[in-house]
Amino acid sequence: MSALTVVKIGGNVIDDPARLEAFAKRFSQLPGPKLLVHGGGKEASRMMRDLGIEVRMVDGRRITDADALRIVTMVYAGLINKRIVGLLQRFGCDAVGLCGADGHVLTARRRPAEPIDFGFVGDVSADGVNADFLGSLVDGGRVPVMCAITAQSDGTLLNSNADSVASAIASGMARVRPTRLWFCFEKPGVLADVDRDDSVIPLITPASYPALRESGAVSAGMIPKIDGALAAVAQGVEQVVIKSDADLLADAGTTICA
Amino acid sequence: MSALTVVKIGGNVIDDPARLEAFAKRFSQLPGPKLLVHGGGKEASRMMRDLGIEVRMVDGRRITDADALRIVTMVYAGLINKRIVGLLQRFGCDAVGLCGADGHVLTARRRPAEPIDFGFVGDVSADGVNADFLGSLVDGGRVPVMCAITAQSDGTLLNSNADSVASAIASGMARVRPTRLWFCFEKPGVLADVDRDDSVIPLITPASYPALRESGAVSAGMIPKIDGALAAVAQGVEQVVIKSDADLLADAGTTICA
Repeated sequence: MSALTVVKIGGNVIDDPARLEAFAKRFSQLPGPKLLVHGGGKEASRMMRDLGIEVRMVDGRRITDADALRIVTMVYAGLINKRIVGLLQRFGCDAVGLCGADGHVLTARRRPAEPIDFGFVGDVSADGVNADFLGSLVDGGRVPVMCAITAQSDGTLLNSNADSVASAIASGMARVRPTRLWFCFEKPGVLADVDRDDSVIPLITPASYPALRESGAVSAGMIPKIDGALAAVAQGVEQVVIKSDADLLADAGTTICA
Repeated sequence: MSALTVVKIGGNVIDDPARLEAFAKRFSQLPGPKLLVHGGGKEASRMMRDLGIEVRMVDGRRITDADALRIVTMVYAGLINKRIVGLLQRFGCDAVGLCGADGHVLTARRRPAEPIDFGFVGDVSADGVNADFLGSLVDGGRVPVMCAITAQSDGTLLNSNADSVASAIASGMARVRPTRLWFCFEKPGVLADVDRDDSVIPLITPASYPALRESGAVSAGMIPKIDGALAAVAQGVEQVVIKSDADLLADAGTTICA
């Protein structure tokens, strides 16, 4: 069975129409079974401001009350998801846009209201992934395109972190087939020197990571991504690659593996 | 093979949360393979007003420019579609929300710009239905929930009429399996006297329709719905029923058949 590639694109790609289109074209050319997870970009916050709804953040995370949930559901599962699906269809990629509620593809658990009540926010893990349904779509030659709107088992919609959704999906799929996970963002990889794009660290392993982290070679902002990548690898994902969206088809970036 | 039931719900159900929830519960109890098509309700127009985007209508039809397309995509494919999917999941119905672009389930043709340029508006027919994919979902025990956002074959998103989407889907599915189509709306059926809910015409056939129409027994507003129903029957749909959403599980309403 050829490996499933789970690709996650971040908000900077989504916020730039030309870059999103170029990415969609490259993604369509990526051989083998694949699945795309997308973040939200700035459109949800912009829409909330335009509608006079207060954007509330704590520690960089959005507080998702009922009004905010309506907006993120509209923007992520409607506007952005269908825009990406339409673009991929244009390039011959048979995309199927989904949120976690659709066919129970990703069941989340609502985060406890203590110590901070984030509202309708859901945490995800490999246990919540419906690998049967996603697998049947992929085996049918289709490409699931997932936004980070998820649902509790009772159907309550929740807002989840898109990086976490990508890690959960990859970890869940890795239980039933070889799976790799690629995070595409604005940098060419994990940089030893954040000001130098030619300082990509090519390989990080559980053995090499502690020294990199202690030496300060890995910037604080990358730590959650690498921690997530190592967790995915520990759960059976063959390989996590952190690379630029422009390098999607190139052998580039930082590889994280066991 | 047991008949597939395609159910279409209108905006009046969607605009009323308690009624939508009651409908979702009933729909979940409907036995056999099924598929739901939903209209848009008033939320898209409200959202456009809230965002200061002009709502333009000609002959009761929305002019869908690029701004309007963004809003209807958000509201129909995001907000309303996922709200319905979440509700159905709550009642144990394994719903999968889709727009026409997803897996090419419904390919539309953009309406010519002459005599009136409606913008991003797509006309649909049985030829545009991906019966293979919809059939595979239904055979897997899933329930497609379709909004009226469709797409050209090149992936360009288009706004379509939800009644027409329901007729096209039913007609397309009728080519490969027994299919019936139910329109659920605020009246108990086609009424001989619009002021009397007990005046439901139980049966309309191609033979009986001309006399009903000429006598004025069928109100002007119902004529497009009945014309559409007869067209679906002519294309192989076994039965079209026009009934109240409250009567979903009852043997009620107006049946249109050959």
